Formats: sequence, C-alpha cells, structure tokens
Amino acid sequence: MQIMDRLYEEVAKKGPVCVGLDTDPSYIPMEELAKSATAEKAVLEYNHKMIDATLDIAAAYKVQIAYYEAMGIQGLEIYRDTLKYIREKKAIVITDVKRGDIAKTAEMYAKAHFTGDFEADIITLNPWMGIDTLHPYYSYLERNDKGIFVLLSTSNPGAHDLEYQVTQDGRPMWQVLGERLSQEGKRFIGDHGYSAIGAVVGCTRPEDAAEIRKLFPELYFLVPGYGAQGGGAKELEKAFDGEKNGAVVNASRSILLAYKQEQYSGLKPEEAARKEALAMQAAFK
Amino acid sequence: MQIMDRLYEEVAKKGPVCVGLDTDPSYIPMEELAKSATAEKAVLEYNHKMIDATLDIAAAYKVQIAYYEAMGIQGLEIYRDTLKYIREKKAIVITDVKRGDIAKTAEMYAKAHFTGDFEADIITLNPWMGIDTLHPYYSYLERNDKGIFVLLSTSNPGAHDLEYQVTQDGRPMWQVLGERLSQEGKRFIGDHGYSAIGAVVGCTRPEDAAEIRKLFPELYFLVPGYGAQGGGAKELEKAFDGEKNGAVVNASRSILLAYKQEQYSGLKPEEAARKEALAMQAAFK
Repeated sequence: MQIMDRLYEEVAKKGPVCVGLDTDPSYIPMEELAKSATAEKAVLEYNHKMIDATLDIAAAYKVQIAYYEAMGIQGLEIYRDTLKYIREKKAIVITDVKRGDIAKTAEMYAKAHFTGDFEADIITLNPWMGIDTLHPYYSYLERNDKGIFVLLSTSNPGAHDLEYQVTQDGRPMWQVLGERLSQEGKRFIGDHGYSAIGAVVGCTRPEDAAEIRKLFPELYFLVPGYGAQGGGAKELEKAFDGEKNGAVVNASRSILLAYKQEQYSGLKPEEAARKEALAMQAAFK
Repeated sequence: MQIMDRLYEEVAKKGPVCVGLDTDPSYIPMEELAKSATAEKAVLEYNHKMIDATLDIAAAYKVQIAYYEAMGIQGLEIYRDTLKYIREKKAIVITDVKRGDIAKTAEMYAKAHFTGDFEADIITLNPWMGIDTLHPYYSYLERNDKGIFVLLSTSNPGAHDLEYQVTQDGRPMWQVLGERLSQEGKRFIGDHGYSAIGAVVGCTRPEDAAEIRKLFPELYFLVPGYGAQGGGAKELEKAFDGEKNGAVVNASRSILLAYKQEQYSGLKPEEAARKEALAMQAAFK
C-alpha cells in the first residue's frame, strides 16, 4: 500500500500522534540505567517499553538518528534494533535523518535508509542542494512503497535565514520549494489524495501551516515540536484537512520524559508515557 | 593549531589535492574483492592502500559517509576504521556528512562527528534550516580546533532551485548565506586569515567561485567534483587566493578508479592512484 495511504489510515483510526524516540541516556531513570550493562542497552530497553506502551495510540514512530550517531557504532546498533522492533510490530517508522546530497551519494543514502540495517518506511530529507537531490529516492517510492518528508518550513528562529527569504517575485523560499515538491509529488499520489512526497512543517507558525495546507493539498505533513518545543493542539487545527487528517504531529521529550511531570508522579516511565500520549491524542479529537 | 591554519600549511607544502574516499565495493578489482572475507573488509584494505599511496601528496582526505551508511553497521565500522587510520597518519580528515539540524539534535551530531568513533577534523554541514543550526558546533571550533565547511554553492544543476534563487534585494541566496557565514566566522579566524567556518563551493561555475573568493576572503573553500564531475584545474584558478591557497580540491573517482584508465594500464590500483594524484598536484602548480 502507498505509504501515505497507510499513514492516513493509521491517523484516521488513532489520531495524529507520532511518538518520537530521540532517546538520550540521561532521560532514563538512574535505577534503570544502573541495571543495564551499558547505556546503549538501557536506551534500547527504554525504547521497547515506550513502543509497547503506545502501540495502540501512535500513528507512527519517529526515530532521530542523531541521538544514536552520537553514541557511535554501539548507538547505531540499537538504532537498527529499534527500527526492527517497530517494523516487527507492523507500525510505521519514520527516521529523521535529514540527509541531502546529489547523484551517486544520494543513491547511497537511499540504499542506506530504505534497505538493510537502517530500513525505514519514511525518511526526512534536506532539499537545499536542489530537487535533483530527491530523484534517487523515487524508485523506492514507486516500487517499495516508501515515502519522504522534505524540510519545507521549520519552527526554529533560524528558519528566517533561508527558508523565509523572499524572492524577487515576492514568494518566500518555502513557497518556491513547496510548488516544486507539489509538482514532483503528483506522480506518487495515493488513494487518499496524498503524495509519497510529504513535507516537514513546523508548528510554531500555525498561520503558515494553514496556508501551506491550502496551497499544497497533496503534501502530507510531518509536524515536529509538539509539547517540548512549545506548539499546542489548538494552534495546529489548520494544519489538518477537513477529515482531521493529512498531518502527523511528533512529540518526543514530552512523552519520553512524562514520568518527570508532577501529574504523573509515582508512575513508571512507560505508564506516564502512555498517559501523556493519550492526553495528546485527546487534545486532537 | 586552528584547523584552517593546519589545512593552509598542508596546501602550501603539497598543493590543494584532497583525496576523496567514496569507496564503493564495485570500484575494487574482482581479484582483490575475492581475496577478502567480506566486501567491507575489501573496502577498508583499499582505503588503506589509497591513503598509503597518497600521503605525501594529499593535503587532506575527504570521506563520504553515505557510501559507508549504505553498508549498514559493518560499513560504519570500516568508516570508523578509515578515519582512525587517517588520523593516526597525522593527516587531516574531512568527513562529508552534510548534517543539518537544530538545538539538541545538532548537539548530538556535533558529538557524533567531532568525538568518539566518527571523529573528524572538519565536517560538512547543510545550512537550510538556518544559522542557528551551526551554533552547537562552535564550542568544538573554539576548544578542539575543529572546523566546518557549510554548503554554499554546489555544482549540481539543482543548485538553481534554491541556492541560486534571487532575493528581493537582488542577491542570490548563496550570497545571503555567504554574508552570514563570513560574519559568523570572524570569531574563529586563524593566523593565515581563514576562519574555522569554511564553505563548500562547486567548481563547475568558476566565475562564481572567483566572486565568492573576492566577497568572502576569510572562507576557506572545499571544492568537490574535480575530474569525474567535470571541473579542471585551469577553470579553478580564481577560486584560490594570491598564494595559491584558500581551497582544497577534492577528487574521488578519478583517483580511486585511476587504474581503469588506459594510460595507467598494468599498474596496481594504488600505483595508478598515486600517479593520478601527482598529475592533479602538477596541474595546480
């Protein structure tokens, strides 16, 4: 099944919660860390618990590779094992790799992240070098039901430096890019009207998310930064289509670290994570 | 020593040749591949030979991580071992990772590529999300003599999609970015006048390289694409400063695959690579 159709149906069933596994060893309670042979093993066990606790709530999981790269080879081993665990559970795994390169190098990244040890269903990509950086992924979109989310408009202050620069004809750069993505995406449209080429759209500028939703109805959104980065469900309403679909909203720290919130005191991390994910799910109802 | 000072002195001594280790197993002669237990082992041995054969010619080595990621965990193990080998030889290692992310994720990438298994001297970065994506690397620039090359103007056709868009005030995007990099870089200037923040500048548009050189005299250039991607030494003259310094020029396939050229027939891959690197060095004299 085309990947955004799969994602659409998950969101229709469960709501738009995407659980982010950006798991830093420092997030894990000391007593759990102490029980594990290594910090990496503790992270893998923590991820397993988080996944098990949210499997019926999460439309997808997003794994941020940087946290695992920072632990070197051992970190990437548990990254591989985390992806494998999610895929075994038949859940959708998005890896946040933000790669961006050309020609044969991009082919290598496509192979790295759509096959083998690091296989994901959807990956994030950085378009700065141009649309030709995306082409090497297309055969996987066509033949293997894979998908990409391209960095369109992000929520950090630095987004103004390049993404929001205004061109000679008065369009912000994100719009210039969005028009190209929309065009490119037309050959990968699924049954629910969404392309296998989607976009990363930040949630601290809800008015822009609404405009991007209107301008590019075929782009599925990955919205990062719920909770810890300051965005809320109310502001995000307009990022969705008429069916409350067309976007997944990622929360990482607010779920991984839920057990530190006063309202969840006394709960195990996985119990607190489940309650936090349920609260987030309810907020989008 | 500040990293661009180190690079400057290497280039002053040896010329601007940067040997790119984008080693695909298919580049290795069948009989050598057959002798190795695994394709990954064969790549590592090939890299060692290439390094040994060019150590007195190369100002630096550039290792493209995508080729190793494509081989999964085993690929990243030989990536780690290749970096270690170069650093043991006291040569400068540039890893072409083109990472780009914000806040804590960028901190994780900085940790991943400036310490531990994947430690490099200089890494490439993608600035699309904004200048704040660079900040988490600054403490390594200051305290550990590390450096970054930021994607400014690349040589692929797609560069026109975003990098060459013209803004309202008539500047191309690469110039908008270059001015910011130049400003940011002022706090990291070394004895030879170059900042620890450098730029990736493609070599298929020599007139632009010349303009960027003039506009931003403190940015050291990493110029990819010599040989296999079509750029030659003559066209690149203006990318250098008055001392024939201020840029390293990367060649990967033309060196790794030199043994397939008719002029080098009968030579071992490492012998052909050495002759090709010497020819490239001579072309820049």
